[in-house]
Amino acid sequence: MRTVEWHQDSVRIIDQRLLPWELKLVTFDDYAQVAEAISQMAVRGAPAIGVAAAFGMALAAHQSGARTPEQLRAFIQQAAQRMKAARPTAVNLAWAVDRVVAVLNDASLTTVDELSQRMLATAQQLADKDVEDNKRMADFGSALIKDGDTILHHCNTGALATVGWGTALGVIRAAHEQGKKIHVLLDETRPRLQGARLSAWELNELGVSFDIIVDAASGSFLRAGEVDLVLVGSDRTAANGDVANKIGTYPVAVLAKENRVPFYPVVPTSSIDLKLASGELIPIEERPAEEIRTPFGQDLFPATFPVRNPAFDVTPAKYVTGIVTEFGIAYPPFNKSLKLAVNGQALQPTA
Amino acid sequence: MRTVEWHQDSVRIIDQRLLPWELKLVTFDDYAQVAEAISQMAVRGAPAIGVAAAFGMALAAHQSGARTPEQLRAFIQQAAQRMKAARPTAVNLAWAVDRVVAVLNDASLTTVDELSQRMLATAQQLADKDVEDNKRMADFGSALIKDGDTILHHCNTGALATVGWGTALGVIRAAHEQGKKIHVLLDETRPRLQGARLSAWELNELGVSFDIIVDAASGSFLRAGEVDLVLVGSDRTAANGDVANKIGTYPVAVLAKENRVPFYPVVPTSSIDLKLASGELIPIEERPAEEIRTPFGQDLFPATFPVRNPAFDVTPAKYVTGIVTEFGIAYPPFNKSLKLAVNGQALQPTA
Repeated sequence: MRTVEWHQDSVRIIDQRLLPWELKLVTFDDYAQVAEAISQMAVRGAPAIGVAAAFGMALAAHQSGARTPEQLRAFIQQAAQRMKAARPTAVNLAWAVDRVVAVLNDASLTTVDELSQRMLATAQQLADKDVEDNKRMADFGSALIKDGDTILHHCNTGALATVGWGTALGVIRAAHEQGKKIHVLLDETRPRLQGARLSAWELNELGVSFDIIVDAASGSFLRAGEVDLVLVGSDRTAANGDVANKIGTYPVAVLAKENRVPFYPVVPTSSIDLKLASGELIPIEERPAEEIRTPFGQDLFPATFPVRNPAFDVTPAKYVTGIVTEFGIAYPPFNKSLKLAVNGQALQPTA
Repeated sequence: MRTVEWHQDSVRIIDQRLLPWELKLVTFDDYAQVAEAISQMAVRGAPAIGVAAAFGMALAAHQSGARTPEQLRAFIQQAAQRMKAARPTAVNLAWAVDRVVAVLNDASLTTVDELSQRMLATAQQLADKDVEDNKRMADFGSALIKDGDTILHHCNTGALATVGWGTALGVIRAAHEQGKKIHVLLDETRPRLQGARLSAWELNELGVSFDIIVDAASGSFLRAGEVDLVLVGSDRTAANGDVANKIGTYPVAVLAKENRVPFYPVVPTSSIDLKLASGELIPIEERPAEEIRTPFGQDLFPATFPVRNPAFDVTPAKYVTGIVTEFGIAYPPFNKSLKLAVNGQALQPTA
């Protein structure tokens, strides 16, 4: 089962807000519902968002009612704006939307039907490629994991965050399937608890040993020598190797470095943004106070208490040991190695 | 109103588990209930625990039914063991119990009544001294705060954590009452949310400007230059300046140092344990999984998901800028300055 897929002329997703209690599939026949599902984090995780948006654009074409390519283009242009605005930080979203919309410039396609079908095929290719790339990253990344290792992980980067395999959690899954005995410390990841709800659910399903900890405890475990490796995902990586990811990633990276524990983001090249020279240029989404105050339908404190809720942080490249991509592991200087990876060149196996 | 006090031959506390929704006083006429209230964190915060335990011992004497000093001593010895076992990390608890029990060695007191009354008077002195010492720390500490500063704070160290004024939050209160315009970023402090529930409630009552943030966000705010000063409490400080405090303090200290922001624990000398050479010797309490899984009567994830829940961490002295005590601010080398403070000698005003 995939997190996001095309199903009977509709987009079907797993509503991640109900896990770990209920595995519920939701079907959308309007692209605006897909955008809303992204915005409300029913589907989340940069790669999953990208593919959901791509299928959402195919859905927009399908529902457009356009009689001419011009009408279709006009409708799609509007839909693309709506879709891209759903969440600002992950680069995959805009990237995937642009990939599907680019079909409209193909002069060899002359009818609305041809264009719509090609848009859907493009979205489907992105979905399939996500799974393939995940597995390639898992091959490269799992070589970093030794038998007996304990891995610290933040947020959710598993099958749920992608289309069907996972980035950082996909690396962990591969090491487990290779027969390595591993243990995973899962940051619960406030405010939305993706670690305690989603990553724990996935590892539990896979039979991987884990413990849930509060985010503030990861420092203690790193200092105690209980962690061999930190693996995280990334919503957007800049050309210099600065990594934007779920709030709390930067503290983990600093604490890992302070305690000489390697820190590796696992990053498909689709989320590397070479146009951004550094992470300082990555827009950081601030999400509603309710996420912190009312995570489960019950207020933790009065609505009059003010809140700040940045959803992401930026980890400067100096804290990053290496970046696992589908073309190998990029090591510093990242300006050079990430460019090679984005251009699809195989990276050298060691630093 | 005091967090802990002697009231009509009983011990009365604020049940902190009900805040910020309800300010409820609970009265105990059995010392074992006091121990249980400490264990269950109805009363929490190292100084408040110490005074609650002291009054608890006075209550034990009151309820003992002893007819001879020997009978009283036997009863109190047992009660002291029970009380000290309530929580392992805070040194104030054992320290305060020992102070009250030491009355039993006073040869000038010959009757059960005299002994019991002196035990109560000793507990009352500890309570009064806690408020006095807090205010002296507030005088020294508030000199660190400039008009316009933003202060990052972890857990709760206010009137609720003490008898009636506060340690780190008491310093913030003093700066506010001096008319300085300040803003406080409050770590919510998972798993029990003392920051979001208790510190926020106290600052709201005092009219101090604040924002609640998730623990994992403090790193971002430090890196963004939005924090001028970090103030925290301490449950136990070792002779070398290593500081045990609520889980999450160590990460904040490392991130503060990494971003050149001063980090000051505010620590009454009663919680400095010169017998411990370093923080590695401080026992760290691991609390039940339910605290993380079921913080508000609702499970966040299934009970089959394993959890680790260390309640404290140790911040090595190298991350500590200075330690605010009731005798002034101790600076490195802490082995020297903390010894002076514990011996009641005034510390030099600057580093």
